[in-house]
Amino acid sequence: MRIERAAQLVDLAGGAAFLGSGGGGDPYYSLLLAEAALTRCGGFDLMPLAEVADDALLAPCGWIGAPTVSVEKLPNGGEAVAGLRRLEEIMGRRIDAVLPIEIGGGNGLAPFIAAAELGIPVVDCDGMGRAFPESQMAIFNIRGLSACPSVLTAADGSLSVIETEDNVTHERIARALAVSLGGIAHMVEYPLSGAEAKAHAIPGSISAAIAVGRAIREARAAGADPFDALAEALEATGLYPHCLTLFDGKIVDVERETRGGFSVGKVTIDGFAASGRLEIAFQNENLVATSGGKILAMVPDIITVMDRDTADTITTEKLKYGQRVKVIAAAAPDILRDDHALSFVGPRAFGMGHDFAPVEQLNETEKA
Amino acid sequence: MRIERAAQLVDLAGGAAFLGSGGGGDPYYSLLLAEAALTRCGGFDLMPLAEVADDALLAPCGWIGAPTVSVEKLPNGGEAVAGLRRLEEIMGRRIDAVLPIEIGGGNGLAPFIAAAELGIPVVDCDGMGRAFPESQMAIFNIRGLSACPSVLTAADGSLSVIETEDNVTHERIARALAVSLGGIAHMVEYPLSGAEAKAHAIPGSISAAIAVGRAIREARAAGADPFDALAEALEATGLYPHCLTLFDGKIVDVERETRGGFSVGKVTIDGFAASGRLEIAFQNENLVATSGGKILAMVPDIITVMDRDTADTITTEKLKYGQRVKVIAAAAPDILRDDHALSFVGPRAFGMGHDFAPVEQLNETEKA
Repeated sequence: MRIERAAQLVDLAGGAAFLGSGGGGDPYYSLLLAEAALTRCGGFDLMPLAEVADDALLAPCGWIGAPTVSVEKLPNGGEAVAGLRRLEEIMGRRIDAVLPIEIGGGNGLAPFIAAAELGIPVVDCDGMGRAFPESQMAIFNIRGLSACPSVLTAADGSLSVIETEDNVTHERIARALAVSLGGIAHMVEYPLSGAEAKAHAIPGSISAAIAVGRAIREARAAGADPFDALAEALEATGLYPHCLTLFDGKIVDVERETRGGFSVGKVTIDGFAASGRLEIAFQNENLVATSGGKILAMVPDIITVMDRDTADTITTEKLKYGQRVKVIAAAAPDILRDDHALSFVGPRAFGMGHDFAPVEQLNETEKA
Repeated sequence: MRIERAAQLVDLAGGAAFLGSGGGGDPYYSLLLAEAALTRCGGFDLMPLAEVADDALLAPCGWIGAPTVSVEKLPNGGEAVAGLRRLEEIMGRRIDAVLPIEIGGGNGLAPFIAAAELGIPVVDCDGMGRAFPESQMAIFNIRGLSACPSVLTAADGSLSVIETEDNVTHERIARALAVSLGGIAHMVEYPLSGAEAKAHAIPGSISAAIAVGRAIREARAAGADPFDALAEALEATGLYPHCLTLFDGKIVDVERETRGGFSVGKVTIDGFAASGRLEIAFQNENLVATSGGKILAMVPDIITVMDRDTADTITTEKLKYGQRVKVIAAAAPDILRDDHALSFVGPRAFGMGHDFAPVEQLNETEKA
């Protein structure tokens, strides 16, 4: 697939924003940079995962830090290329293609800018199927690959290489580095072979994001309900089999602080027509949605707050008092929902005291 | 000079502890490791700075972090070698010799263990002439050399390479890394040529530390006053031209916390025979000594608290209520006292609102 129209990037940004579950960073700046890169290079190659050579060297890319910082501290635009070039030096060979470490939010677009610069394709896959706040929540860690060597680069030109065997230690070091670099840094991590990517990456997630973004945009243009279009498009991807509207209301409170390299907090939404109250706790991403003491959705399922008129995603750092929103939930890809994966990305991995339950089961009675 | 007797290492530890101005880490563990290395390798080569080839590659070594952590979290013993080997890979050549980034405290002994392992000499010089809490306080930064590439290694086997043009940013990144690695890490930084070392390093500081340590030890053994011996030995080095006893008393209070990768606090000492009270503020190292509203000594001059009977140095992390101590001050090497150097290591560099005044001037009236 060739991406050569700005509308495709806009659709990718829209779909990636939804899949970010409120995180991955607002795609706005990444979209601007990708559009500029498109103008320069004329197009991006999006390579199906199945077509990648087994012995190819692939580099997952993305930004690490608090989304609250990412909207205030602008990149210099060269971070990803600097990181990729250093990884090539370390590996002693060329990188054949890049991919987003997470499809969600701005990180879904991040690799395109570097790909254009280096003249290499982006592989149609990612490492999370959504966005997660911590590096070791990538499927590549769940499946036992190493995050290292990883390369962090920052807007001031700083570059750091990390090598450690333990991927949780890697996240801790990388997070501390990001904080010391002003709260946000670009990271190339989990370098892997084509064969490893085919065995472990989430396939088709970039084209899925484009399809989701396009469906919303087209529905809006046609005067149709964008939320219906979103649900249909999501289910059609085959990756996200269930989608439902959890709540419809007005934001009445937002608690948020930037702490330890994360944006953490809680948003409270009052339902229209006295239909109760929903609370969503977040750590960069929306983690759990609760109403009247009942959990309606939880990680790794996707929970996204959207403008109730436009179906534009409101990332966690953009939540504000008074916004009229719908809260949409979608089932995470199946490979994030088995017991092994849940030990890395389920509610207990975030310190919650309960097991995972799928969003479609939690909301069965409501739908019946 | 060849170091082949354990007593020489003990003397080095004693002298380095004094020159640390309370910091650089208690030399105890470094001494144990150096003694073990001596047993294995039979001796260390201490090369005079003047004999180093201009085109030699030299690597300053030391530990970064809070001394309070260094006495609780033991090294694995391989940190320095791992860091030096990685620096060799990055530089594409062998390291010809090592030196302590700071002569003060345990860091004065740190390079010997790696030197023995790699079979290379230690150059008789260092980068601070004492110990300072922050990396950019090295004479190499004062003279415009780059700290990078630097390599941090930790007890868990983690390795990080930092590259940044600004040495203050380098310190910030390295400090954050050290904190994320448990509070302490080994760092190889400011790689430099023999010619650069000859132009900028503090020459002879290792042999000076050995001479100071020996003088204290021999005086003690002979029943003479170890403080007189210390003052004589210091002045004989030519590096530390003035030495005086600031205070004699008992520690009545210690405030200390480990914060941001530093050990910061204040010690209060009551003089014997109602001779007033001395307060010393520290950030890893003792920074300023004040009595009755009058400053008696300040950075970069050396301020060291010592056991009043044995003349053993008490590093800042070992200060305790009830210790009976003498506080000894010594003039810093001249090259740390010019206006340019003082902008990096003088009182204003530590946030104090006054200019530097030499310890020998501050205490003139008392001596007269």
